[in-house]
Amino acid sequence: MTAWAGWLAEQRAAREAAGLQRGLRPRQAGDETIDLASNDYLGLSNHPDVCRAATDAVLTWGTGAGASRLVTGTTTLHTDLERELSAFIGQEAGLACSTGYHANLSAVTALTDRNSLIVSDEHVHASLIDAARLSKAAVTVTAHNDIAAVRDALADAGGRRAVVLTESVFSVLGDAAPLPDLVDVCTAAGALLVVDEAHGLGVVGEDGCGAVRAGGLAAHPNVVVTATLSKSLGAMGGAVLGSAELVDHLVNRARPFIFDTGLAPAPTAAALAALRLLRERRIGPARIHRRGAELAERLGVPCSAGAVLSVPMPSPQAALAAQAHALDAGVRVGCFRPPSVPDGVSRLRITTHIGLDDERWAHALDVLTTAVQRCRT
Amino acid sequence: MTAWAGWLAEQRAAREAAGLQRGLRPRQAGDETIDLASNDYLGLSNHPDVCRAATDAVLTWGTGAGASRLVTGTTTLHTDLERELSAFIGQEAGLACSTGYHANLSAVTALTDRNSLIVSDEHVHASLIDAARLSKAAVTVTAHNDIAAVRDALADAGGRRAVVLTESVFSVLGDAAPLPDLVDVCTAAGALLVVDEAHGLGVVGEDGCGAVRAGGLAAHPNVVVTATLSKSLGAMGGAVLGSAELVDHLVNRARPFIFDTGLAPAPTAAALAALRLLRERRIGPARIHRRGAELAERLGVPCSAGAVLSVPMPSPQAALAAQAHALDAGVRVGCFRPPSVPDGVSRLRITTHIGLDDERWAHALDVLTTAVQRCRT
Ligand SMILES: Cc1ncc(COP(=O)(O)O)c(C=O)c1O
Ligand SMILES: Cc1ncc(COP(=O)(O)O)c(C=O)c1O
Repeated sequence: MTAWAGWLAEQRAAREAAGLQRGLRPRQAGDETIDLASNDYLGLSNHPDVCRAATDAVLTWGTGAGASRLVTGTTTLHTDLERELSAFIGQEAGLACSTGYHANLSAVTALTDRNSLIVSDEHVHASLIDAARLSKAAVTVTAHNDIAAVRDALADAGGRRAVVLTESVFSVLGDAAPLPDLVDVCTAAGALLVVDEAHGLGVVGEDGCGAVRAGGLAAHPNVVVTATLSKSLGAMGGAVLGSAELVDHLVNRARPFIFDTGLAPAPTAAALAALRLLRERRIGPARIHRRGAELAERLGVPCSAGAVLSVPMPSPQAALAAQAHALDAGVRVGCFRPPSVPDGVSRLRITTHIGLDDERWAHALDVLTTAVQRCRT
Repeated sequence: MTAWAGWLAEQRAAREAAGLQRGLRPRQAGDETIDLASNDYLGLSNHPDVCRAATDAVLTWGTGAGASRLVTGTTTLHTDLERELSAFIGQEAGLACSTGYHANLSAVTALTDRNSLIVSDEHVHASLIDAARLSKAAVTVTAHNDIAAVRDALADAGGRRAVVLTESVFSVLGDAAPLPDLVDVCTAAGALLVVDEAHGLGVVGEDGCGAVRAGGLAAHPNVVVTATLSKSLGAMGGAVLGSAELVDHLVNRARPFIFDTGLAPAPTAAALAALRLLRERRIGPARIHRRGAELAERLGVPCSAGAVLSVPMPSPQAALAAQAHALDAGVRVGCFRPPSVPDGVSRLRITTHIGLDDERWAHALDVLTTAVQRCRT
């Protein structure tokens, strides 16, 4: 055995001893399990208009972009999506990336350098944490949603350009950031607020435009938005939305954008079709919230700001048991345990979907109520 | 104007003064320009079998994976691709990622920590450079393809686990890494060699299996392969290929894999269909090399190890002029100038494709010969 093989075996043994070993469990085509674990909140990944847009795009454009966006990988599909998505989110311009991860890496690394300070909420997503690490900026982590802490951190910025990182709806706990207060604090300090709308787009605001525009913060000069195309839009990819000057800067400076092949035609077209369904109000988030409120009441937990319901459990074992119970009864939910939870509390992560018909939804409610009650005590 | 808007304007002015300002130029559907700039070397992005696999996948699986791979974003499409791709490349197991960038970030960050040393060839791709930056390891950059320098760097590793980064075919210059020598040096030092086959897969080896298997290095215990699905396979995405233990380690530890939505069904299925065309020898790289040799001879430059022909030009202006000339005559090629060239030399980057029929290829040869001759002097 090489030293490397030995190291991998040691690492695995340590994970197993800590109860942290995980593995992939592939879904089969036609799997009938009720899915309350995915982020396809509006069920658009299987919407006929969205699927048709994707298959049409393959026939028109082929299966790949062929090259990075600056070389020859930009198509009018990309620019259509960028124009319509930025308008919907309330920003002047947009840039589509291959993933939400790329979008966050691109925005944060291109906006900062050695002379910058990043102030990051302790609950932000791994992609924002990695973006801050990849940047050359100093990083201050602040307590969750603690406006005073952000103000203090910015007061310590000295002459450095400062960027504050948050999410409109947090990915694991499902709570909201106090965006208006954050914008005020950032504006007063001359800082830029990066708002990740991964779980806000399609979910917050009457038409699903996200928390920034719904909160009256469209085109605010101190706000930059990042988003994913992989959640409520049912596709894959990400985007950065802001001023035309910001987008021009990213095109020229964001390495994870510049040196990556363009987003493929099928997901680009799917996201665009999904967006149009939202914009034309042919689909909307109202039912997500009604269902979320119903589920929260049944489980005795606070409502979510979005579509992510967080159900704290007394232990990692209890969380796993509840998840297994639900799965046995045909309902798949997420189970998050340390170190994947920002506050150290094991929990179920249940997402409310409108793709399910009422009967299956009612069944899911019953299953989850029983599973959680049994395993909570 | 906010301070941020002022900074963006300043940055743009500096780029313009340096002649480095770049912008996106969208392609239209049905664009008839001959494309010798993309990395779709085999023309598979528009192959009917590949397109049909992508559209079928949309109808079966929808337009998105819906969640991260560990939550519920793994389908049997992913595991089929992983099994068949790893076998083709000559490795035990594989892990599909959303981009080649994610694959490199995942492999390098999960294999290293504060007690590691990364030894990186000075010509490696931005994604490997960013991966090394994102890791917590110490990084030593060695002169291009300098085996003695790699040996010396590894001798300085002390007790640290060491990882060496290279590409089988380098992305801008199109030259090859001396893989057998690198493997020997790594094996002697107990180091792991990460070989990025982005431009080797589909191009090197009789069947396009890449330089690792073609070079007799399949399943070598000191080799890990990364690859993209976005170049010769005509789709998008990336993969890490190695031992089953390595893949298990990545599933548990690679943040850019764990916290990213799974690769969408269409590109996953497209890459799998493309791979099968190669494996069944219904398509292969022989004609790429014949065309590459012909073009190299006409332009008076050395042949490429892959499909990327690098044509040094006397100045950035001359490179731009030759590119513009060719485009006027209907042929698109890449133009790389500092700081996007690893050796500071401005050049055309011309990729040989087999998607073009003989007549269009002959036309492209004439156009490029004229454009380069005119602008070289
Ligand atoms: C808040 C947040 N930001 C970014 C991402 C990354 O997006 P993607 O999966 O498209 O890479 C995710 C989820 O994956 C997320 O939850
Ligand atoms: C050598 C190399 N590695 C990795 C990548 C990244 O692959 P992707 O475009 O799929 O992110 C590229 C090109 O983009 C490349 O040339």
